[in-house]
Amino acid sequence: MTAYDIIDAKKRGMALSEEQIRFFVRGIADGSVSDVQIAAFCMAVLLRGMTDGECFVLTDAMTRSGEVAPRPNFTGICADKHSTGGVSDSTTLVLVPVLCALGVRCAKYSGRGLGHTGGTLDKLESFKGFNVNLSAEQFERQVEKIGGAVAGQTNSTVPADKRMYAVRDVTATVDSIPLIASSVMSKKLASFADVILLDVKYGDGAFMHSPADAEKLARLMVSIGRKAGRKMCAAVTCMDSPLGDSIGCNAEVREAVAVLKGKKNDLAKLSLFHCEKLASLALGISEAEARARAEESIASGAALKKLAEIVEAQGGDVRAVYDESLLPLAKHCEVIRAPGSGRLKISALALGKACCALGGGRQKEGDEIDHSVAILLKRRAGDPVQEGETVAEVYYNKREEDALASARGAFEIVQTYEPQPLVYSYIGEED
Amino acid sequence: MTAYDIIDAKKRGMALSEEQIRFFVRGIADGSVSDVQIAAFCMAVLLRGMTDGECFVLTDAMTRSGEVAPRPNFTGICADKHSTGGVSDSTTLVLVPVLCALGVRCAKYSGRGLGHTGGTLDKLESFKGFNVNLSAEQFERQVEKIGGAVAGQTNSTVPADKRMYAVRDVTATVDSIPLIASSVMSKKLASFADVILLDVKYGDGAFMHSPADAEKLARLMVSIGRKAGRKMCAAVTCMDSPLGDSIGCNAEVREAVAVLKGKKNDLAKLSLFHCEKLASLALGISEAEARARAEESIASGAALKKLAEIVEAQGGDVRAVYDESLLPLAKHCEVIRAPGSGRLKISALALGKACCALGGGRQKEGDEIDHSVAILLKRRAGDPVQEGETVAEVYYNKREEDALASARGAFEIVQTYEPQPLVYSYIGEED
Repeated sequence: MTAYDIIDAKKRGMALSEEQIRFFVRGIADGSVSDVQIAAFCMAVLLRGMTDGECFVLTDAMTRSGEVAPRPNFTGICADKHSTGGVSDSTTLVLVPVLCALGVRCAKYSGRGLGHTGGTLDKLESFKGFNVNLSAEQFERQVEKIGGAVAGQTNSTVPADKRMYAVRDVTATVDSIPLIASSVMSKKLASFADVILLDVKYGDGAFMHSPADAEKLARLMVSIGRKAGRKMCAAVTCMDSPLGDSIGCNAEVREAVAVLKGKKNDLAKLSLFHCEKLASLALGISEAEARARAEESIASGAALKKLAEIVEAQGGDVRAVYDESLLPLAKHCEVIRAPGSGRLKISALALGKACCALGGGRQKEGDEIDHSVAILLKRRAGDPVQEGETVAEVYYNKREEDALASARGAFEIVQTYEPQPLVYSYIGEED
Repeated sequence: MTAYDIIDAKKRGMALSEEQIRFFVRGIADGSVSDVQIAAFCMAVLLRGMTDGECFVLTDAMTRSGEVAPRPNFTGICADKHSTGGVSDSTTLVLVPVLCALGVRCAKYSGRGLGHTGGTLDKLESFKGFNVNLSAEQFERQVEKIGGAVAGQTNSTVPADKRMYAVRDVTATVDSIPLIASSVMSKKLASFADVILLDVKYGDGAFMHSPADAEKLARLMVSIGRKAGRKMCAAVTCMDSPLGDSIGCNAEVREAVAVLKGKKNDLAKLSLFHCEKLASLALGISEAEARARAEESIASGAALKKLAEIVEAQGGDVRAVYDESLLPLAKHCEVIRAPGSGRLKISALALGKACCALGGGRQKEGDEIDHSVAILLKRRAGDPVQEGETVAEVYYNKREEDALASARGAFEIVQTYEPQPLVYSYIGEED
């Protein structure tokens, strides 16, 4: 068996055997398969596809390419949530404290932002001193002790995915459903979460442009997780316009904190939707009961207190939870005004790119981020606006004309606006 | 414009613009496009295809990625022949001396063997001291002075193809018609041949398995050459079983010399077919007249004398032209016997691989070759045989059981044998 023959078989549209897939993934992990072979393989998979069976084996092989965290023997159900990436989506910052307050353990592994999408780890680092690099032992101990932890996976977790993703990122092979599914799920299965909710985005600012593709991806990932013995559910949600009203690390943390203090907006709605589903599955209670407890955890301040506990446990400046001046916005502000009168259309992709280009995001892995760069929406997509009224404010330290033009270009006036539901579809335990 | 966007466009099945193709090829030549991007591009082209227009631009861009030999201003037409690679195909060693004897200049750039296919440069090095590394000036001077030269192209010729081929070779992206066409033709167009004959192989031992695919490739290459102003013709020929009766460098040189001394076999037939077509096009004479002159050049010994002249001009031991003991076969001999009674089927691929594995070929670029390894056919494909009679002899210095098993496995007994014509189709000047 050789990597060459495996690429050749996939190129010819054949389904690969379990042995072939495991051989190839072992080769990615041990270096015997070269980068060019990974690139050709990914393009062949993208264009020829994979059966669900192949995709499960690929996922499992990738999971086993590195260290797999064994389920600690503490009591209680561990939940995790994964979003395929969006703009102004800080649901994790709301959901983890709420679930912890409800007694659901949150063993949450998160990632960093790249391109136009934000990353939870970057946002958490807005709390000065916050340590996202926990050892497996630290992570476990914190989940046991205070109910929740949010950290990055270590380099020894799913090394095959790390190598494969670096190749996919530069070869236009990211947007393949089986490759996305195996990449996401290999990392989820390397963790010890019992219940996993997947938030699969579609639209302008997402990898999947149509809800149908997003749903296909969601169903595939749910089936992989279930085959591996996890409780799975998934929401297909819209990412045409930003989820919340803020883009940029400090601004998004401010907004998540505001939601935990009772603010009601789309970020709050989606976070509560996720909490309701996860808490119901994890605690074996009705969705209505789960929803009521989640809302109560916010109203009582219990959830906010949990956030403070987690920030403190991971060494972050907990004062910022109560004083948003410790999450400053950049010093210059440019107002964006409606370019005409009518209904407002807002591009999540254009705003994500603008924030990134102003230094608020990461053009490539390893770039430094300016946490204070922010775009604050003053009007929502679909709102009726008059020409010249303020629709957004852009905060920056270093002026970049192209980025500001991209931000302005994100706002369009249309005469009829077709609103998209926040949650397009939900795949529950019975589906 | 970025390499990423170009790969993405091809992946989506779009035709690339001239600007995009030239940008990508420049990037291959100057290193700004990475190997993984080349791999993904090649797989996308293989699976999505290219229009003839795209393929012409790709070829032209690759040709211009390096040094292009300008047409020297000597009189007479320069001819070249290119085979897509086969087993026991030494037509070049027959054709060049014959054409030179007829007054057609042969400015022949050749390659080395790889895998199961042999290479003309390796065979010429069977003449001890033969120098295949001529400078452009040496090459030109020799073509002018004695009418012919056979050499390798230098590293500065078509560098984009060199890099691309190295990637294709390990990523199962060799067998793409537009990629083969652009690779072959970019090198041909970097030379100053006025008339080019392409011998496109199909069958067991060729890249193209069906005659239809081989003809498609042939027509595409002919159209590219004509667009670039060259006189083009092409023969689609069968490579199911070895062309001649010998495989291995010394043995193939012996056989080519024998043909130049009057031996009649399939190697002689195909060589004379090519000579007839090329001489007719180059000299503007009828094919019948060209054929008669070619046969006469052999009968008179003029062609053999030309071979000696070329060998001498390039520093080779010219005595081997007249004394085949200077082209020795390896010291051990294993006889292969018919495994049953019936018609004989012979696999060119299996014999080519066996010769390679015994050291007579090159598993990877840069490997040393044992020129004395040989497989001599004692029966031809389609011959009626009795179980146990000798069908071939294998000469080797180092016993390799797998290689010998591959050689034995190349001979099968069938009850009905469908003979393939030597030349399946010919694309002439008017086609």
